Amino acid sequence: MTLNKQVKLAKRPVGMPDENTWTLESSELPAVGEGQMLIKNHFISLDPAMRGWMNDVRSYIPPVQIGEVMRAGSIGEVIESKHPKFKVGDVVSGWGGVQQYSLTDGQGYYSVDASLAPMPTYIGTLGMPGMTAYFGILEVGKIKEGETVLVSGGAGAVGSVVGQIAKIKGCKVVGIAGGPEKCKYMKEELGFDGVIDYKNENIHAGIKRELPKGIDVYFDNVGGEILDAALARINMKARIVICGAISQYNNKENVTGPSNYLALLVNRASMTGMVVMDYAQDYGKAAMEMGMWMAQGKLKSKEDVYEGIDNFYDTFKRLFSGEKMGKLVLKVLED
Amino acid sequence: MTLNKQVKLAKRPVGMPDENTWTLESSELPAVGEGQMLIKNHFISLDPAMRGWMNDVRSYIPPVQIGEVMRAGSIGEVIESKHPKFKVGDVVSGWGGVQQYSLTDGQGYYSVDASLAPMPTYIGTLGMPGMTAYFGILEVGKIKEGETVLVSGGAGAVGSVVGQIAKIKGCKVVGIAGGPEKCKYMKEELGFDGVIDYKNENIHAGIKRELPKGIDVYFDNVGGEILDAALARINMKARIVICGAISQYNNKENVTGPSNYLALLVNRASMTGMVVMDYAQDYGKAAMEMGMWMAQGKLKSKEDVYEGIDNFYDTFKRLFSGEKMGKLVLKVLED
Repeated sequence: MTLNKQVKLAKRPVGMPDENTWTLESSELPAVGEGQMLIKNHFISLDPAMRGWMNDVRSYIPPVQIGEVMRAGSIGEVIESKHPKFKVGDVVSGWGGVQQYSLTDGQGYYSVDASLAPMPTYIGTLGMPGMTAYFGILEVGKIKEGETVLVSGGAGAVGSVVGQIAKIKGCKVVGIAGGPEKCKYMKEELGFDGVIDYKNENIHAGIKRELPKGIDVYFDNVGGEILDAALARINMKARIVICGAISQYNNKENVTGPSNYLALLVNRASMTGMVVMDYAQDYGKAAMEMGMWMAQGKLKSKEDVYEGIDNFYDTFKRLFSGEKMGKLVLKVLED
Repeated sequence: MTLNKQVKLAKRPVGMPDENTWTLESSELPAVGEGQMLIKNHFISLDPAMRGWMNDVRSYIPPVQIGEVMRAGSIGEVIESKHPKFKVGDVVSGWGGVQQYSLTDGQGYYSVDASLAPMPTYIGTLGMPGMTAYFGILEVGKIKEGETVLVSGGAGAVGSVVGQIAKIKGCKVVGIAGGPEKCKYMKEELGFDGVIDYKNENIHAGIKRELPKGIDVYFDNVGGEILDAALARINMKARIVICGAISQYNNKENVTGPSNYLALLVNRASMTGMVVMDYAQDYGKAAMEMGMWMAQGKLKSKEDVYEGIDNFYDTFKRLFSGEKMGKLVLKVLED
């Protein structure tokens, strides 16, 4: 009998989740009903947004309930299908959750061509993080050729793509990340014009050095002190894209608000939030463009793949400790 | 010999200005050179923005220097002119400063028809505060018929006009102000749909009661706790107009940032700063529309006029204590 290992939410964390936040359970594979399909998941996506999905608050999607399989993006292979659109052998991506097999009616799933890119890339640069970067920097950031772009989490799944797209569009790009390895990666592999190592230098001094003429667009993945430092150096009519706030997600008390927000007034600037799902109808167009950039070598993708659903918690922690390079992925398939 | 009483900046205040922040001096009237005119000021405008102009920081206009006449909007009568555009007897508005007479080359000045509205109205609803309201709510807030609009400082020079314009455009308008008198004014005289007395009720509860369906546009004059409370109730695609932050101007330490700013993300909302001077080329059009609304009785204007340049400091304090109704004006003309 094949068992399905599943990671379920056991309790609502306060602050940083711990080892008791989830339980690992095994259950028999479910029967496939009419209109459904069963997917053998190969990889699941680990994203900072997962932290928010665990809070019992009104947000852009409902919170994961206690006892439910933890929500996660996934990619895998259809192994049984009574679905009109998907057949056995299809490689599909969707919201499979932190489990080895997913039974679904196909909602939110789409097929990908696994011969064109490795599966983890489809949940990274060609998946939600890449789409977030694409629509965030182009539709919300509204970058124009010659502008200066600062991106935090610049070596991460979203930030690395933000910076590369901004380079493709003719902007000057500066990335912020923690540690020399990530900074070297942004500079040498991604081709950013400048880098700031927030763990080893003063962030204000770094921004001043790398962007002496100020910031036209700041793409924020982190919030906190770095958002404030960026606000202090924005130019007239600057756009700040609020994509995330990883520094704040595990706060037990209030989020720290940006005390320099009046820079928006002085500079007639804006700060706008975004959620990638709003752009779902244009994913196809974005994926095509991103795929072509990848094929031309203009857009690089890096995934940091860990193995074993049993290691979910240890891998999850890397999202917040920063001990990863690029997109964090967990292989849940057992060979 | 006619003397010109002038209020000059004596030192840079830390926190709330005190009686030693300015000095009152008298000087002989200057000679009028070619291309200049001498104006006898009747009224000067007192605005919260004055506080920011005293700080030695990069902002949208240079700070007032120590020893300079305190910057202020003004209205008065030309009493001597070698200026090609202005003649003796013209009533003109501009940046006359806190003084009884102003010598100027005319830059930034314009004539008004004093028979159509009282002089104080020209530095209130038909002056900078009115223009700020007009462009802020229409161009930045982008209100649409049927939307809900919340405005802080709703009985003030800017907020009262914001709310009335939003009513004219078919919005549901709720105003926040301190004390029953101001709330009565907003409700009964300005026709707002709802009012919240922040001095006598919980602001969160007030917003929930008056705007059970949430906020589409929030026009912020105050910052601080009220901005956070508004963020907590914004709707999808909401727009927050950052016009000022009167609660924060006298902070000795850091400004308090809005800790609920991630509501922008969840709701795909934006927070945008504005400075009225950016719209200078369209003041004419706005003034015409506002004038017509006033003539039709749709737009009401209230000025709270105090007398005597010697009372500048006591009058200035009312900006921050809230002890005023509508636009705060000081009559500097001595009869």
